[in-house]
Amino acid sequence: MVRMVDLIEKKQEHETLTTEEIKWMIEGYTIGEIPDYQMSAMLMAIYFQGMAKEELRDLTVAMVKSGDEIDLSAIKGVKVDKHSTGGVGDTTTLVLAPLVASVGVPVPKMSGRGLGHTGGTLDKLESIEGFHIEITQDEFVDLVNKNKLALVGQSGNLTPADKKIYALRDVTSTVGSIPLIASSIMSKKIASGADAIVLDVKVGTGAFMKNIKEAKELAETMVEIGNSVGRDTMAVISDMSQPLGEAIGNAMEVKEAINTLKGEGPEDLTELCLVLGSQMAYLGGVGDNLDDARAKLEANIKNGKALEQFKLFIEAQGGNPKVADHPDELLPRASYQVEVTADRDGIISEVDAEELGVAAMILGAGRETINSKLDLAAGLMLHKKIGDEVKKGDSLLTIHSNKKDVDASVKIIKNNIKISDHAEPVTLIHEVIH
Amino acid sequence: MVRMVDLIEKKQEHETLTTEEIKWMIEGYTIGEIPDYQMSAMLMAIYFQGMAKEELRDLTVAMVKSGDEIDLSAIKGVKVDKHSTGGVGDTTTLVLAPLVASVGVPVPKMSGRGLGHTGGTLDKLESIEGFHIEITQDEFVDLVNKNKLALVGQSGNLTPADKKIYALRDVTSTVGSIPLIASSIMSKKIASGADAIVLDVKVGTGAFMKNIKEAKELAETMVEIGNSVGRDTMAVISDMSQPLGEAIGNAMEVKEAINTLKGEGPEDLTELCLVLGSQMAYLGGVGDNLDDARAKLEANIKNGKALEQFKLFIEAQGGNPKVADHPDELLPRASYQVEVTADRDGIISEVDAEELGVAAMILGAGRETINSKLDLAAGLMLHKKIGDEVKKGDSLLTIHSNKKDVDASVKIIKNNIKISDHAEPVTLIHEVIH
Repeated sequence: MVRMVDLIEKKQEHETLTTEEIKWMIEGYTIGEIPDYQMSAMLMAIYFQGMAKEELRDLTVAMVKSGDEIDLSAIKGVKVDKHSTGGVGDTTTLVLAPLVASVGVPVPKMSGRGLGHTGGTLDKLESIEGFHIEITQDEFVDLVNKNKLALVGQSGNLTPADKKIYALRDVTSTVGSIPLIASSIMSKKIASGADAIVLDVKVGTGAFMKNIKEAKELAETMVEIGNSVGRDTMAVISDMSQPLGEAIGNAMEVKEAINTLKGEGPEDLTELCLVLGSQMAYLGGVGDNLDDARAKLEANIKNGKALEQFKLFIEAQGGNPKVADHPDELLPRASYQVEVTADRDGIISEVDAEELGVAAMILGAGRETINSKLDLAAGLMLHKKIGDEVKKGDSLLTIHSNKKDVDASVKIIKNNIKISDHAEPVTLIHEVIH
Repeated sequence: MVRMVDLIEKKQEHETLTTEEIKWMIEGYTIGEIPDYQMSAMLMAIYFQGMAKEELRDLTVAMVKSGDEIDLSAIKGVKVDKHSTGGVGDTTTLVLAPLVASVGVPVPKMSGRGLGHTGGTLDKLESIEGFHIEITQDEFVDLVNKNKLALVGQSGNLTPADKKIYALRDVTSTVGSIPLIASSIMSKKIASGADAIVLDVKVGTGAFMKNIKEAKELAETMVEIGNSVGRDTMAVISDMSQPLGEAIGNAMEVKEAINTLKGEGPEDLTELCLVLGSQMAYLGGVGDNLDDARAKLEANIKNGKALEQFKLFIEAQGGNPKVADHPDELLPRASYQVEVTADRDGIISEVDAEELGVAAMILGAGRETINSKLDLAAGLMLHKKIGDEVKKGDSLLTIHSNKKDVDASVKIIKNNIKISDHAEPVTLIHEVIH
């Protein structure tokens, strides 16, 4: 008879748990037969001893099997999903979905509402009047087959084992374990039904991974898991020492995405979208190699097809496609604009992504709790980033707010944008793993 | 505000928990405010990261303070307690208590009933007709002041935190953590009220510590804890690769103790009692050094005072003191004696203490569960130990049983006494820590 205490001991002794043992453990924990106190001891043992490749695969599969799995087989082609480990001002999904769809790769996008600095993809798109996701699963499939792109709310009970384990990790200080992070993310992606997965692992002060060594370990672990269960997986390690792009806020990020699809977006956001997009397109069967895939994406930005794809997508789900031509008129705008200016001459040496995210959230751009109400117009627009020269009095960023009192945000921003005589250059893409 | 998850993280990061933090944690866990799943994560983090000296002291003190503390201040002199980490055929307490009392050191002994290979000290002494521990706390104190020795049942709610933590360790595979073992043992000894403590740490196949390195670490950790809270503490690391002495069984061990007090006991048991006894006597204020204390104990064995002390003790608690002169007549004897003989010529190379303990327990010498009924007469009497020469057909040991069918015990014994051409010599005392 298997006993949980023996499995914990095996892990302490650095032995490899078998497929059957991991399956038994995850099933037993999900239905409540294995108590929290034994699972938390196991999680802490994993924190210290790590997991072998086969254990990671088995754990991920067991968590996938613990709940519903989305069946996307009615959608033609190789379905490619993207996951970002999370950062501030990350507008990539809004750009990537239409960009990759425009080269013919099906992008069946599922999204929930977000907790954090800004909303989720769904929240952001709701700043376009009329846009909605009240479509059935069949309509969703039809839309993707027809237009290559649609967005639907998450349905079904995906990876309940992961949800339960995550809640336990949160209160037992095992959130930071790389094998546990990797299997958690990958179980959700796999249960969501994609055939191939591209991962954007963020590193820096605004990301969960604070250094490149850890980010690389996480990326490699996730790529390994994906490939071991037959999902082609690639990853990019990208910078989150400062916010990506210039906009932090829901409607503002929609506008930034539109600009990027026109070829007029911020350099860093555009570059990261092309790198991630070429992996997605290549895995989706477009192009002979990554460079080739990238060329096709660049062409579709230039020739307007990427923007057309965005309009098609918005219109199909009830939104006004003219938003792409007149974002300033058709997206919500905040009542107050407040400039935060440089208090000396110099070079921007630090723009703390996490703290700027907090400053945006306070304005209403993000949810502090599940019940917080979003202000889709609120946010920050950065004018300067690390390495930029500034003169005293130059605007560093503009606060967009519907509340007149923005002192709390100003204070955070002033404390977290540093001007010095010198700045370390920022590397946008640290590594591409494929 | 202190949060348990932050304390777990400190331990993961190898930082030292403060006195206040440990006190908060143990108090909170004892009253149920900190859940099992957080404590088990902490215990696993301690398993991997260990504890600093000050943490060990603080944890031990917090566990002592979680319940009642026995007040022995009404007993004159330095009260010395002894603790053994447990083995098979360990008759030392029955010898040491009267031996040390005979040189004038007060020995206020508390004992419960034992689970395991043989009974506890109380069970063993109940093989003497009339002996009982139904005395009040006041009578107990008076008896020790008058006779230097008395035995009472354990009273009060000692170290409830340790009991709760031990139960959790048992099901989360953290029983084997040396800092947790050390603080658990020491908290119980300290709560029991002794001024000084002597520890017998057993090492070998029949002990919890399987190698000398671990045993030494445990012994040193416990000595450090004792001294850090103002209780003079010494330790001996002694062999448990084979049973100590020759008798494994309750009445049989009483007889062996009587023989040892007469100077006619087995060599290994006698030697260990003199080493532990000299530490107890010296800590109790007898002798200028350990050698001097030992000389006084040896004298009292030769001049009969040790045996007199035993009789006085037995008589004071209702037993017949003549048992010391006629043990064979006055102690219970089993109906059947079965010899287990050598099946070849050679030298005894292995006598597995743990397995022989199991063989004795099956006969009724020990309790398998809390409800098992003891057979005080049952047990094993060893005639050969490691290094002894044997001829084919010689008796290795005698089984004493009230059940005719002893096949199961015979089988275990045959499998666990090995005869070879050569044997590694056994070291009885590995180390003396003072």
